[in-house]
Amino acid sequence: HPQQQRSVGIIGAPFSKGQPRRGVDRGPDAIRAAGLLHGLHEQGCAVKDYGNLTFEEPPDDEPVGRVKHVRAVGSANQRLSEAVQAVKLDGRVSLMLGGDHSLAIGSIHGHAAAVGQLAVVWVDAHADVNTPLTTPTGNIHGQSMSFLLHELHSKIPILPNFSWVKPCVSAKDLVYIGLRDLDPAEHYTLKLLGVKLFSMTEVDRLGVARVMEETCDYLCAKAKKPIHLSYDIDAIDPAVTPATGTPAVGGLSYREGLYIAEHLCQTGLLSGVDLVEVNPLRGRTKDDVRSTVSTAVDLLLACFGRLREGNHPPDYVLPEP
Amino acid sequence: HPQQQRSVGIIGAPFSKGQPRRGVDRGPDAIRAAGLLHGLHEQGCAVKDYGNLTFEEPPDDEPVGRVKHVRAVGSANQRLSEAVQAVKLDGRVSLMLGGDHSLAIGSIHGHAAAVGQLAVVWVDAHADVNTPLTTPTGNIHGQSMSFLLHELHSKIPILPNFSWVKPCVSAKDLVYIGLRDLDPAEHYTLKLLGVKLFSMTEVDRLGVARVMEETCDYLCAKAKKPIHLSYDIDAIDPAVTPATGTPAVGGLSYREGLYIAEHLCQTGLLSGVDLVEVNPLRGRTKDDVRSTVSTAVDLLLACFGRLREGNHPPDYVLPEP
Amino acid sequence: HPQQQRSVGIIGAPFSKGQPRRGVDRGPDAIRAAGLLHGLHEQGCAVKDYGNLTFEEPPDDEPVGRVKHVRAVGSANQRLSEAVQAVKLDGRVSLMLGGDHSLAIGSIHGHAAAVGQLAVVWVDAHADVNTPLTTPTGNIHGQSMSFLLHELHSKIPILPNFSWVKPCVSAKDLVYIGLRDLDPAEHYTLKLLGVKLFSMTEVDRLGVARVMEETCDYLCAKAKKPIHLSYDIDAIDPAVTPATGTPAVGGLSYREGLYIAEHLCQTGLLSGVDLVEVNPLRGRTKDDVRSTVSTAVDLLLACFGRLREGNHPPDYVLPEP
Ligand SMILES: [Mn+2]
Ligand SMILES: [Mn+2]
Ligand SMILES: [Mn+2]
Ligand SMILES: [Mn+2]
Ligand SMILES: [Mn+2]
Ligand SMILES: [Mn+2]
Repeated sequence: HPQQQRSVGIIGAPFSKGQPRRGVDRGPDAIRAAGLLHGLHEQGCAVKDYGNLTFEEPPDDEPVGRVKHVRAVGSANQRLSEAVQAVKLDGRVSLMLGGDHSLAIGSIHGHAAAVGQLAVVWVDAHADVNTPLTTPTGNIHGQSMSFLLHELHSKIPILPNFSWVKPCVSAKDLVYIGLRDLDPAEHYTLKLLGVKLFSMTEVDRLGVARVMEETCDYLCAKAKKPIHLSYDIDAIDPAVTPATGTPAVGGLSYREGLYIAEHLCQTGLLSGVDLVEVNPLRGRTKDDVRSTVSTAVDLLLACFGRLREGNHPPDYVLPEP
Repeated sequence: HPQQQRSVGIIGAPFSKGQPRRGVDRGPDAIRAAGLLHGLHEQGCAVKDYGNLTFEEPPDDEPVGRVKHVRAVGSANQRLSEAVQAVKLDGRVSLMLGGDHSLAIGSIHGHAAAVGQLAVVWVDAHADVNTPLTTPTGNIHGQSMSFLLHELHSKIPILPNFSWVKPCVSAKDLVYIGLRDLDPAEHYTLKLLGVKLFSMTEVDRLGVARVMEETCDYLCAKAKKPIHLSYDIDAIDPAVTPATGTPAVGGLSYREGLYIAEHLCQTGLLSGVDLVEVNPLRGRTKDDVRSTVSTAVDLLLACFGRLREGNHPPDYVLPEP
Repeated sequence: HPQQQRSVGIIGAPFSKGQPRRGVDRGPDAIRAAGLLHGLHEQGCAVKDYGNLTFEEPPDDEPVGRVKHVRAVGSANQRLSEAVQAVKLDGRVSLMLGGDHSLAIGSIHGHAAAVGQLAVVWVDAHADVNTPLTTPTGNIHGQSMSFLLHELHSKIPILPNFSWVKPCVSAKDLVYIGLRDLDPAEHYTLKLLGVKLFSMTEVDRLGVARVMEETCDYLCAKAKKPIHLSYDIDAIDPAVTPATGTPAVGGLSYREGLYIAEHLCQTGLLSGVDLVEVNPLRGRTKDDVRSTVSTAVDLLLACFGRLREGNHPPDYVLPEP
């Protein structure tokens, strides 16, 4: 039963070199400190915390073309890919706490290496599908999907420490939710590849419930593949989750964000989850950080069975006087 | 006609012993001071203010089991029940301004005593359906519905000053809206009894308009019973109504809250209303309190005929030059 | 194609005498300073800025009946009407930056004088349809539509500097969106004339997507008239756009506001736009002003082709390694 006894393996990935702002490497510990493990235990999950990964700092990590920190991002993701594979071999749902969204490269790669073809749900204000040749900023957290899509293989140049990355996601197995800030190259690519996307316009038009129905219908049309959910906290409106590096107005409400997680949990197919871009050094006030981190925790609890209507243990008995 | 000439009887119930935070007893006067009566008059209601009830402080009101202030809550609600009966005998819609939500015991009891079988719409982040034996906190404002439901009668122990309370609501005549923070025992109970509920997940899925349609279809399926609306201000999101004792993130928007009140008003069946848990000593700023109180007033004006599209007197004539 | 190469003519109208608060005359420059022209250029619009109008101060502009600044409002709008006609003769979509909403008189008058019968979409918390004889405040920004509607002609007294104004809009060609604060006379008038309106109640009931579908179905039922969009920034919720003179709680979300603009743009029929009531001297903080102004810019960019799913130039080519 999807609500009971989910087995979760947590990997902390305190990595920030996919983007320029320090602080996002403190995401994993902030999310743990806000009670993630306690909450998961309380709702009946079997949790194993695999701890935080440590990452090397490759020497002479000069930009390659416009792309920054290529070697660091490449080697961190290789390490992460291995860690995710280990969690999957242990029979757990992998939960990667970022760190920046470049970590989706290793997380999805490792997940696919362990279980085969995936369906990917990418919840984000951004599409993160620039190639190393189209990126306006050079930050790899805005390019992650370009390395993973089979269809973009010929557009990706050879990069140091990236030779281990093999594309593993088909454009037809990817759904975006929450988009509202895309570069022209990204928009061109998504249209070219026919990627299914629900920008905020579609969320407004259809409502989040129909978005999730259509998402699951689309992804499960032929076969029920394991689902990888890559959740960028900046998908949520910055009024709720301001402590992130690239906030974008007009985002998902807290409730919509939660609904997405609840719905994916109910499919029983969630097999890997990323929660990225929580940056406790961003936001203006302590409340900004608290709200961001506690929203992240709530999203994850919903991914692993928590329902807003309540939950009760299967063996509950109502006491009598 | 539901928009015109509603006759309203206001009872202030400055009572706070159903929960531990001082200040909620100041709710009635704060709501009056924010212009409730003026607004009701202006929209053509016939209003009688019955003033504030006074409550005795029973001596030696020690906890009974885990349950706190049993005797005070019991006797306050007995007094309130009588006051509501008097308002109903006067032919008015009763409007009880709390005070904490334990007051629903007396308000609903008195309403049912005067008019017979009720349909109850409980708008709240919480289900308030712990029994005295399941309550994790001992606060009776989290137990009110357990005393009122026929189906829970055998689960309720004998308590001092509660002998006058007779269950008067059937599980099938109760609808919850806005739930998002339930204890396991509460969830178990609601599922056991098959109570109709629209948690925030259902509000997200269906939208508030369909929630209200289904609520009224469900409650009026067989007969058009008088409706008792018990509105806990914490149903609304704490971004809007933070000045309350047990705020819960992810609540109803101001607009959804208003829609619920407008829709119930339009049924023509509203016969009793509670507005509870406004605590002017909570919230961080004066604006927090102002927003909470003025939202409470707006909800009540909508209960008694105010429409956002506007209203005009039936005899209005447009002047000509 | 509606997204490409829209030709826009911007008229600044720094006028505030349709209401009593100073500052709204600073709207046009604030909206320009927030990057409107840059944004329009970037999305492929051909923009011509016609600069700010200058307005005379008529001597002895004493109230006429209850109506304030009649002569100033009359002559400012006559000038604006001519400016809008010039923009339309140049073959551009007219974009009037207010200033207060009394400017809709000249903007719509000029638009209709140039292109003939219009469909008008009025997005506002208020109906602005008091006549000079029903106005409770005397402020003409609350009366604009009364001068423009054929059906109200007999209700409008003769006023100095208003003889040039001829009614040019039929009640059946007008749709209101976002209403939530109407005077009884206004409500009476809209019901008498059978004006199509979507108050916030209807937005809640139908959702903004169906509101826009019904709006366009209704306005285009017989013929595809050019659309005049008159957007009062106070239609949006004051949590988002507080820097305005008459904020009203319970407004459109940023996303709903944007959806309205996107949808009207997609019709390909937008021929004139007003963006009014941005007052950089209102709001409490710099952030209040920034949020208000940048929302105004975002609404306008959406009016002229920007999509949240992204845009790309028609000739885009994805680079290869
Ligand atoms: Mn991202
Ligand atoms: Mn992002
Ligand atoms: Mn309650
Ligand atoms: Mn509550
Ligand atoms: Mn207006
Ligand atoms: Mn307005």
